[in-house]
Amino acid sequence: MKLAIEEAKKAWKMDEVPIGAIVVYKGEVIGRGHNLRENEQSPSAHAEMLAIQEASEYLNSWRLEDTTLYVTLEPCVMCSGAIVMSRIPHVVYGASDPKGGCSGSLMNLIEDTRFNHRSTVERGILAEECGEMLRTFFKEKRAKKKQNKEKSSDS
Amino acid sequence: MKLAIEEAKKAWKMDEVPIGAIVVYKGEVIGRGHNLRENEQSPSAHAEMLAIQEASEYLNSWRLEDTTLYVTLEPCVMCSGAIVMSRIPHVVYGASDPKGGCSGSLMNLIEDTRFNHRSTVERGILAEECGEMLRTFFKEKRAKKKQNKEKSSDS
Repeated sequence: MKLAIEEAKKAWKMDEVPIGAIVVYKGEVIGRGHNLRENEQSPSAHAEMLAIQEASEYLNSWRLEDTTLYVTLEPCVMCSGAIVMSRIPHVVYGASDPKGGCSGSLMNLIEDTRFNHRSTVERGILAEECGEMLRTFFKEKRAKKKQNKEKSSDS
Repeated sequence: MKLAIEEAKKAWKMDEVPIGAIVVYKGEVIGRGHNLRENEQSPSAHAEMLAIQEASEYLNSWRLEDTTLYVTLEPCVMCSGAIVMSRIPHVVYGASDPKGGCSGSLMNLIEDTRFNHRSTVERGILAEECGEMLRTFFKEKRAKKKQNKEKSSDS
């Protein structure tokens, strides 16, 4: 999870919501990703999607069997779906996302028995650190916005 | 939908499950995609994902507002999620997918009121033609498999 947090910090440096993910296969990191949605203006440039894509290129397979995905925030509806579609057997996430998380919060797609595949999940790993990055990021964003508003009303 | 069917036929020619999708914006096709999962060995190379990606590149935005996605088969869990994440307001699909469809069959992610965004959906458009492609594809696959088995038991 520490490596996923490192990825999240890369997103933060690029003024992206700090979310990071890695895919591990036999003790080796084979996929890394950090949120790039705004920089790439791509709806699928979420940390998990990018890490999954890199891992499938590494294994030359869309089936990511024997892998573990570590991600700092509970996966959204699309990323939870991608976990199902790539058959990742183990998922470990940090902070929960009560508003948009689909791996346990709003719904639980990755453990849904109606799909061909389901994952085992570990939740809340380094959750405090993962969540604190997000809270600080949004706090700073709000402060900047306020500052800009005051500036423009001064001029 | 006829253009989405054309896309599906491109997948078929490449021995991929024949599914095709297009994204339309102000009467113009701005994204096309056909299933390439096996050829690319990528879990996210579904027709909808590729069409969405092309459309977001065209608009230089991850928000696909004022667009319509046409797809020959009901979107899976990942693609339904991507529709939510890219805020596509209108979705039109052909055949339903009772085993894996998440835009009305197994569940209905794209009309779920718990998300920030939901789409309007039209179902069953040219469903017979869309479904027939899939049935013929799988029938041919099974026949080939049987033939190969017989060949190997002869030798």
